[in-house]
Amino acid sequence: MADAFSFRLLGADGAARRGEIATPHGTVATPAFMPVGTQATVKGLAPEALRASGTEIVLANTYHLMLRPGAERIAALGGLHRFMNWIRPILTDSGGFQVMSLSKLRKVGDKAVTFRSHLDGAVVELSPERAIEIQILLGSDIAMQLDECLRLPAPQPELRRAMQLSLAWAERSKRAFEQAPPAKALFGIIQGGDDTVLRTESARVLTDIGFDGYAIGGLAVGEPQQVMLGIVEGVLSALPPDRPRYLMGVGTPEDLLEAVGRGIDMFDCVLPTRNGRHGLAFTRFGPINLKNARYADDPRPVDEASACAVSRDFSRAYLHHLVRANEMLGAILLTTINLAYYQDLMAGMRNAITAGMFADFCAATRESWAQGKASSS
Amino acid sequence: MADAFSFRLLGADGAARRGEIATPHGTVATPAFMPVGTQATVKGLAPEALRASGTEIVLANTYHLMLRPGAERIAALGGLHRFMNWIRPILTDSGGFQVMSLSKLRKVGDKAVTFRSHLDGAVVELSPERAIEIQILLGSDIAMQLDECLRLPAPQPELRRAMQLSLAWAERSKRAFEQAPPAKALFGIIQGGDDTVLRTESARVLTDIGFDGYAIGGLAVGEPQQVMLGIVEGVLSALPPDRPRYLMGVGTPEDLLEAVGRGIDMFDCVLPTRNGRHGLAFTRFGPINLKNARYADDPRPVDEASACAVSRDFSRAYLHHLVRANEMLGAILLTTINLAYYQDLMAGMRNAITAGMFADFCAATRESWAQGKASSS
Repeated sequence: MADAFSFRLLGADGAARRGEIATPHGTVATPAFMPVGTQATVKGLAPEALRASGTEIVLANTYHLMLRPGAERIAALGGLHRFMNWIRPILTDSGGFQVMSLSKLRKVGDKAVTFRSHLDGAVVELSPERAIEIQILLGSDIAMQLDECLRLPAPQPELRRAMQLSLAWAERSKRAFEQAPPAKALFGIIQGGDDTVLRTESARVLTDIGFDGYAIGGLAVGEPQQVMLGIVEGVLSALPPDRPRYLMGVGTPEDLLEAVGRGIDMFDCVLPTRNGRHGLAFTRFGPINLKNARYADDPRPVDEASACAVSRDFSRAYLHHLVRANEMLGAILLTTINLAYYQDLMAGMRNAITAGMFADFCAATRESWAQGKASSS
Repeated sequence: MADAFSFRLLGADGAARRGEIATPHGTVATPAFMPVGTQATVKGLAPEALRASGTEIVLANTYHLMLRPGAERIAALGGLHRFMNWIRPILTDSGGFQVMSLSKLRKVGDKAVTFRSHLDGAVVELSPERAIEIQILLGSDIAMQLDECLRLPAPQPELRRAMQLSLAWAERSKRAFEQAPPAKALFGIIQGGDDTVLRTESARVLTDIGFDGYAIGGLAVGEPQQVMLGIVEGVLSALPPDRPRYLMGVGTPEDLLEAVGRGIDMFDCVLPTRNGRHGLAFTRFGPINLKNARYADDPRPVDEASACAVSRDFSRAYLHHLVRANEMLGAILLTTINLAYYQDLMAGMRNAITAGMFADFCAATRESWAQGKASSS
């Protein structure tokens, strides 16, 4: 539907897919992980450092940017790419999730959602059309439709209502998107909570409307992994194979293996960045909590064989010290380590799919994680 | 007195001096500015970024490191250079200033100073001998004697008492330093508050004891610049010309010009880093307060002709946004900009001294600052 956007399937290994997304700001190898750049920055990393982690695309938040500094302001400054000095692809979410999780006095109507800003309490209205307008002002390479997210568990009638409202908004989003040049790409978002029937219906109607890609929203909000993966499996069979599938807000390294194995192409998650700021390193040997006193005298690097220099060049004792002393550099180094690990994991999965060795790769990866657990117990 | 340390005077222009300090971890061109790496990190900058700013030597704080993570621990981990992954020279202060400014229930005796840690309230004793021991454990390239700092203004008898105690401690520091291999370099610290007679006496006695370099301590604590410069002038004539002179805790860019013009070789100061964290950029056209709403829509970089990529690549509007949104990246980028500016200013002074154009350089620098003031009013 948008000329500047395309998705090519390059290969598959079982349900796992290897592909490439082309956007006006460059290509993205899939399966891809998108770090979260909430307020026009991935916390603590300059664009160069972000690129060095292997990141090809970042996610930015419509909700945050519309409130501060404002979409019109960013547009006047040349768009979000120029604003944050990130020349590669950007996906923007539509704000639906943050309206649910951050704002006060949210009121969902057919026309729009009204809420109070978490910054200053101002009353703000966000409609499907305005969400598209904002994302076009930002210059997003991939825009998301506005949806209504619910906290789980929720009663089935409520799940149905929100799912149907999201479908109505999907249709309006597409109309707004098509009327507003310059259009790049728009993804629809499948809702329906933990109800497979609702999810499948949502996927089917969205496919009928037709989008450049399909996202699964409203998961990874506390439900067990098996519930999430069950929904993913049910939904993917209802989606066209020639469009990218994006599992929003996911996840742990284990989640990524499982979801890629089921055919997901794109992910975003705050885990590597947020947990990094809280002292946790993701590594080939599983997570390391550097706050732990056991690392105070540990001269070993996080991973001496890592391709990431930070993982090799700083001792666990130093990282422990930085975290304990609440030094910014601790957050910066651990964020760097974690994004490098996530991107390395994605690259490993991509190579394994190409080589037809995805199952072997997953087994070896899990074995390596288990080694870390065994040696730390 | 220490073989591994030397200072060579390479030239002079009036009272301003161009020199080179050699240490076991490399050389330092003087006049030199040392960023403050309080807790074994210059806040927000990895060693590579620090080096990219033009920094050749950093200062680390004995007081902070003895309390956390502990000097013996750092020694067991291979010393401070390896701990913080900074392979170039490190100067450590002795803790005297922080005991005055940070700790509670300080009690100064002849033998040592006793205080409560600002971290956990533990009672800690710091003697001249222990301050040397700690700095040797850290592996410092330049150690400082323990001194007693006073807040100004202070009564003359109190200034005299603290100055004389600092001299007694200087002698004990030197003895401890000489007995403790591996010795690198030890600087004495001139005290005496704002009293020129006391300062000159302090400088004379320290020179008799004999140190690798001489520091002027206890200034830049709120006194007018003219008072500080008066003390500097009075003291420098009492010091041997073949040893480096270090003005502690100074200063603004204007302070640096003035003090270099009087013959100071070394500086440390938190201004470029701390003010960077608070939204202020130091530039060729004077300081820019990026918190100011006037920058919200300003697409211009901080300085498009700067050698520092951050000064060229990010708009004032973006920096304003990051500062307002309290994003770590704002502190990181502004710290980078400020250290690059400070180091660029030092390099400019060094080149001007070599070329015999120091006065012209100062005039041009001040004119450039004034331009900024004129255009912003």
